Amino acid sequence: MKHRIALVGLGTVGQGLCEILRDHRDRLVEEHDFDPVVVAICDLRLGSLTCDEGLDLENVLELAQSGSSLEEYEDPGHEVRHGGDAISMLESCSADTLCELTFTDLGTGEPATSHCRSALSRGMNVVTSNKGPAALFYRELSSLADEHHVGFHIEGTVMSGTPVLNLARLNLAGNRITAARGILNGTTNYILSEMESGKTYQEALSTAQKLGYAEADPTADVDGLDALAKVTILANVLMGADLRPADIPCEGIRSITPDHIDEARAQGKRYKLIGEVRREDGRVSARVAPMQIEVSHPLAGIMGATNAVTFTCDLLGEVTISGAGAGRIETGYSLLVDLLEIHRSVLQRSEATA
Amino acid sequence: MKHRIALVGLGTVGQGLCEILRDHRDRLVEEHDFDPVVVAICDLRLGSLTCDEGLDLENVLELAQSGSSLEEYEDPGHEVRHGGDAISMLESCSADTLCELTFTDLGTGEPATSHCRSALSRGMNVVTSNKGPAALFYRELSSLADEHHVGFHIEGTVMSGTPVLNLARLNLAGNRITAARGILNGTTNYILSEMESGKTYQEALSTAQKLGYAEADPTADVDGLDALAKVTILANVLMGADLRPADIPCEGIRSITPDHIDEARAQGKRYKLIGEVRREDGRVSARVAPMQIEVSHPLAGIMGATNAVTFTCDLLGEVTISGAGAGRIETGYSLLVDLLEIHRSVLQRSEATA
Repeated sequence: MKHRIALVGLGTVGQGLCEILRDHRDRLVEEHDFDPVVVAICDLRLGSLTCDEGLDLENVLELAQSGSSLEEYEDPGHEVRHGGDAISMLESCSADTLCELTFTDLGTGEPATSHCRSALSRGMNVVTSNKGPAALFYRELSSLADEHHVGFHIEGTVMSGTPVLNLARLNLAGNRITAARGILNGTTNYILSEMESGKTYQEALSTAQKLGYAEADPTADVDGLDALAKVTILANVLMGADLRPADIPCEGIRSITPDHIDEARAQGKRYKLIGEVRREDGRVSARVAPMQIEVSHPLAGIMGATNAVTFTCDLLGEVTISGAGAGRIETGYSLLVDLLEIHRSVLQRSEATA
Repeated sequence: MKHRIALVGLGTVGQGLCEILRDHRDRLVEEHDFDPVVVAICDLRLGSLTCDEGLDLENVLELAQSGSSLEEYEDPGHEVRHGGDAISMLESCSADTLCELTFTDLGTGEPATSHCRSALSRGMNVVTSNKGPAALFYRELSSLADEHHVGFHIEGTVMSGTPVLNLARLNLAGNRITAARGILNGTTNYILSEMESGKTYQEALSTAQKLGYAEADPTADVDGLDALAKVTILANVLMGADLRPADIPCEGIRSITPDHIDEARAQGKRYKLIGEVRREDGRVSARVAPMQIEVSHPLAGIMGATNAVTFTCDLLGEVTISGAGAGRIETGYSLLVDLLEIHRSVLQRSEATA
């Protein structure tokens, strides 16, 4: 069954998703009866493009990867509309689902939040890996989705495609999750891992920058702000809290020295930048801080750029999941898994009414 | 919405499930619109009992935990039927779902497989943590379920309630899983962990027996037979193979000596009993054997009785999940999570046709 998709944002993640849909369509149709048709794309830099019959992703990717404008896209057999901003594109296209993939702004959540509101209000599902709307407006947007009987799925906002939110919602369902603690930022975990093997903070940061793990301005990572956005999402999604990043104490790793690392090691512990949410006596609290973890704990073994979360559940005890926390294809995949879940519901409804 | 349940087998796991349903019913109704009503129970030792209006689980558990026959159960307000074997109970009760919780027989899969066949043929869903039907007859039973438009869910057969099969099916959907490697037996992992800290195999086995991790006859664990059943299930469920345990090479841990452990350590490795399935060139292969794992790999950090699986996915890379692999409540919970998934489908269908 066809699933019609609008994409806002055709940067790294958007291109990753398009590559997956281009390369694995046969498998998706065969195994999931999921036939993705991208009907509209809007990108701040590359322009916008709508074709109700579906765009040729090979052509789209060639343009995007050569930095050419989407205005150059041609399809003699079908009506193609060019131009217009994201909102007007959403208003005029026939998509079942918006993939919101613009840049993250943790201050305002814009322009992504406006795109999500517009789509949900029009009865369009939204899937996004953008932390802005998820960290700042989750409650509003998920209510809006419920009101319009559509989905608002944000798996990719926490650990790219590695399942965290869907794991908790589907596979730990029926448990009371009393705590979630995780390594939610690959850059800082890479730096701390390098410091474990003897480097200073500055040396480790330089290596991370050379490898492309850290930005030239590493503030968002090393001051814990990226982990903070993810912790906010965990608190609000897993525990029904209504926190903002500004409500949550946050400390980064700049102050960690080789001496700290050595002292921890002497006690059988290892420093990790931990994002933590807890529910106690009905109250949800959260924080981000470097913490000493017993080396025998599953989180202590997570080295390099890998991410992980440990859930504490009342029935099942501790469950830990680890995997990629970033990456073009890995984050592109996070959108696919959310699309597949929405599609599964569509198929079940259509079977029930057949 | 009520969900009517028949239980065959009221041993450790059956009692664990009943405790969960007794203690957490309000939460399940509130959060999942899932109102579990146990309408029939049959146990080889305790007898059988049917009441279409639902059994009082508090009374049932008191009888079971004092070793009293279910014949003594009384409910003046409702019609209660006593006696009969599992098959005749399934034929006469009004359950939506059978929870098959009898003992595992990896030779014949009986009597559990007959119970599953009977229920599925009557249009009843089946959830089970019994490795027999799952390891020996998965393909037949899942086809039978499809034919009758019901579910056959077996999450609890691999790592109790820790999500493995549901994780692969739901949260890794859209990936091609090319390999799954895991620590699937807590007893042997406990023994190997103790040997890491200096004990001989015999000393570690004795401790495991004292703690109740290992049976007086430890064959099923230490010769890898329990892991073998689980690997068979992974091969057949995750990779669509049609293997039997007898088709899969299997080596246990009896031959591992402290010298082996030391040699591995000198090379930065650690011995683990690994169950492995691989898909290469369209062919699925599987094996169980002690293997040396790099200490930096997530599986190497899994110590004691904890279980874990690493999936290798074409889009998402490696994802590792770890958690309990056994336990009364943990395995009882595995049935609940499968029941909740079946119930979710029921609710979606009922919403679609409303």
